[in-house]
Amino acid sequence: MVDVCFTPDEVVANELQGRIAVVVDVLRATSTIVEALANGAKSVFPVPSIEAAVRLAQNMGRDQVLLCGERRGLPIDGFDLGNSPREYTPERVAGRSLIMTTTNGTPALLSTTNARETLVASFLNLSAVVARAAESGLPVTVVGAGKERRFSLDDAVCAGAIVRGLCGERHAAGEGLPDTAHAAMLLAEARSGDLKSLFEGTAAGRQLIDAGLGEDLEFCAQVDRHDVVPRFHNGQITL
Amino acid sequence: MVDVCFTPDEVVANELQGRIAVVVDVLRATSTIVEALANGAKSVFPVPSIEAAVRLAQNMGRDQVLLCGERRGLPIDGFDLGNSPREYTPERVAGRSLIMTTTNGTPALLSTTNARETLVASFLNLSAVVARAAESGLPVTVVGAGKERRFSLDDAVCAGAIVRGLCGERHAAGEGLPDTAHAAMLLAEARSGDLKSLFEGTAAGRQLIDAGLGEDLEFCAQVDRHDVVPRFHNGQITL
Repeated sequence: MVDVCFTPDEVVANELQGRIAVVVDVLRATSTIVEALANGAKSVFPVPSIEAAVRLAQNMGRDQVLLCGERRGLPIDGFDLGNSPREYTPERVAGRSLIMTTTNGTPALLSTTNARETLVASFLNLSAVVARAAESGLPVTVVGAGKERRFSLDDAVCAGAIVRGLCGERHAAGEGLPDTAHAAMLLAEARSGDLKSLFEGTAAGRQLIDAGLGEDLEFCAQVDRHDVVPRFHNGQITL
Repeated sequence: MVDVCFTPDEVVANELQGRIAVVVDVLRATSTIVEALANGAKSVFPVPSIEAAVRLAQNMGRDQVLLCGERRGLPIDGFDLGNSPREYTPERVAGRSLIMTTTNGTPALLSTTNARETLVASFLNLSAVVARAAESGLPVTVVGAGKERRFSLDDAVCAGAIVRGLCGERHAAGEGLPDTAHAAMLLAEARSGDLKSLFEGTAAGRQLIDAGLGEDLEFCAQVDRHDVVPRFHNGQITL
């Protein structure tokens, strides 16, 4: 059975036991993580705060890592990279360990520690994640990062695309699905045709446009750009 | 600007200041309240617990009131009426004061005390509520009751129908709407055509069918059965 949590607040820890958690923060943390690992980054350590990021960097050796992330969508003072996937080129990240803190995506990842396995999903690696989750045979919960603890339409549409990929025609009418998964599927049917235009109308997308980062919308709208499935395990995300 | 909260947990009290709150619990509390008041009930007092209901009944005079509500969808021992709108006939409720406690609907109502005004909505009085909210000129927040603190598709579709009624063509593409309101509108466009069939697939609807209360689905699917707008003020709901 596929379930969807639109925000991390909806994840009651023990509901994930024995399940695959698939974390989605389309704009932009999970898109960025997928891009970074596909471009050769060794691993990504998601941490809850700037302080935790700086502390971990000191422990690992400041010059051994890249400090990455955002607050209010913007790069953090003293950090090496922001949260735009366009920054995470092979030249910048290949072979490197990344420490990342973002407003919505990292809390979502950290909410899934009770799951049997946590996968990192975005439109950039949609089909690869669906295939991996389906292969596992385990029940799946898609966890949307949301935006400041609220429902985010971009994440919901991506969650719905994953539900459709996993359920196919069986649940075409939403039959037997939890209400969230059914709704996500309907939203994906309505709006996954033109993702860039969808993003231009969402709160997360508008914030990026206002911050001069509108090019990230088109980047994150690329479906199946990469055939990779990042996995979050023991505090780090790797392929 | 129209906003939607899919669950009462999403209502941060001060966000409702100066706004009209429109509370929706399609299956079944707000449908039942609309039916009761349209059939001549004097007022409905929503209370958070069975204990609070019994205490208020004692204070008001047990034979002066009807005790109403449900737990797990079923009537409560010692109460006069359950939560099926079909029970709230003119013969039973005309001229009576009702004290009501339900699992999802009454907490949703009680979450809106900071709003300028709280209206009670369901499909039974959809157009009347839209007209009243539009007339007010105030910003509107639709609050879905959800189901045990989770997203409920029946409430979301009703919320979307209210958003469509308020925004009309202006927001046909969801432009400028918060993500929740935009999503609710898309869900209403997808599924408000055959409400009974929608309800048969939702968690709330399935629970009612399993409890032998499937006829409530068809009842609650009647659009604009009544031209009334219940208003929640000073602890009681009246027309």
